[in-house]
Amino acid sequence: MRHVRFRDPAGAVREGEWTDDDELRAAGRTYDPSEVEILTPVEPSKVIAVGRNYAKHAEEMGNDVPDRPLLFLKPPNTYAAHGDTVELPAGKEQVEHESELGVVIGTQARNVDAADAMDYVAGYTVANDVSNRDDQRKEQNWIRGKAFDGALPFGPVVADPEHVPDDADIELRVNGELRQSSSIEHFIFSVPELIEEITQYLTLEPGDVIITGTPEGVAPLEDGDHVEVTVEGVGTLEHDVARKERRD
Amino acid sequence: MRHVRFRDPAGAVREGEWTDDDELRAAGRTYDPSEVEILTPVEPSKVIAVGRNYAKHAEEMGNDVPDRPLLFLKPPNTYAAHGDTVELPAGKEQVEHESELGVVIGTQARNVDAADAMDYVAGYTVANDVSNRDDQRKEQNWIRGKAFDGALPFGPVVADPEHVPDDADIELRVNGELRQSSSIEHFIFSVPELIEEITQYLTLEPGDVIITGTPEGVAPLEDGDHVEVTVEGVGTLEHDVARKERRD
Repeated sequence: MRHVRFRDPAGAVREGEWTDDDELRAAGRTYDPSEVEILTPVEPSKVIAVGRNYAKHAEEMGNDVPDRPLLFLKPPNTYAAHGDTVELPAGKEQVEHESELGVVIGTQARNVDAADAMDYVAGYTVANDVSNRDDQRKEQNWIRGKAFDGALPFGPVVADPEHVPDDADIELRVNGELRQSSSIEHFIFSVPELIEEITQYLTLEPGDVIITGTPEGVAPLEDGDHVEVTVEGVGTLEHDVARKERRD
Repeated sequence: MRHVRFRDPAGAVREGEWTDDDELRAAGRTYDPSEVEILTPVEPSKVIAVGRNYAKHAEEMGNDVPDRPLLFLKPPNTYAAHGDTVELPAGKEQVEHESELGVVIGTQARNVDAADAMDYVAGYTVANDVSNRDDQRKEQNWIRGKAFDGALPFGPVVADPEHVPDDADIELRVNGELRQSSSIEHFIFSVPELIEEITQYLTLEPGDVIITGTPEGVAPLEDGDHVEVTVEGVGTLEHDVARKERRD
């Protein structure tokens, strides 16, 4: 099943199913996805992000492969939903897309062994870890670079784990043109390994999300771009992009 | 007025005043602080932290003074309240205290000019930015170093801004011994400058907190330590420390 959250035409927030026929079913009714406002499928207390988790992306960025997961945070002001317009931060030249698989936590997790980690996973979602390289290159912690408003569109669904094969394809298109194409089989650190490492330090709560790094092919976004990120078995996250004028 | 949030002996969450006579007043009743469970005075969606905001602390850490604020994040799993016991992360040698003034946001803030910034401040609180140097030194983003469970005790109150002078003293004691003693007049970046810089990138929500950096005198915490952090005009945050056994 693929779980979705949306605001119906009357303004009520509904939780339901995104069916294989691309209908939304909730509370005994059926909706067309285009007639509702899709919300983020969960409301995480925090999102833990992983850097350099595909060797070819580390290489394209001129970085070594890390010996343990490179972690950072995407706070709640970054969350954006399927169908939203992401505003590029004012005055920045190079703001890039990063297609990622998102892991949604189902059960509070602390000091979890990799062998048991999948017991704590509710399912998978799709994310774009939008990254402002102008600032990311210059700062110790990636706050201006990664934590600006709207820098994490994710959704539209949480797919049950059995929908997503271990070698699921991950793709990103901008205005229909394929920019990133890889498979999650190329992860340097697996989902269970990430959960073990993170939960040695941080308790993960139900609804928290781990975004698992991007493959090669990152490139700048521009005003007016339409972005589609697809993970096999989960579906396609779509969002638009607008460039803000520099604040005067 | 100094605002407090607590759980009364019957289990109800109360919001009220911490009086100058050290009584808690809420809903027409008076409580002794020792008979209730003090909660964090707000529940931030995010806490933005500032590194190296006192020149003498940058110097003691062997760092230059930054040319713009060094920012990082403390996610919700780090929040701890007055009276809580902070567990040092397992197997880490050097976990240090950092006394800080906390700025509590009162009104949603985005692209705020420094000249207007104080209009968005609800008041001030006291914080300890507990820091695991073993990992902080080794990682790009300070997640294992700064975002582990319980790494941000703060409170016990939010004091209205007029209580806190521009040269307020800030002190930290461990087991009664003075470890840090400075004044917020030594900030490299002022509170209005921090709000202007942060809100160019991130929208701050009511209840969000900015912790403003620590003065010199940071030092390791040990099992059984009792910590008191005092900011003039706000009050004293107290918490205990316990060392966890390394997980086997």
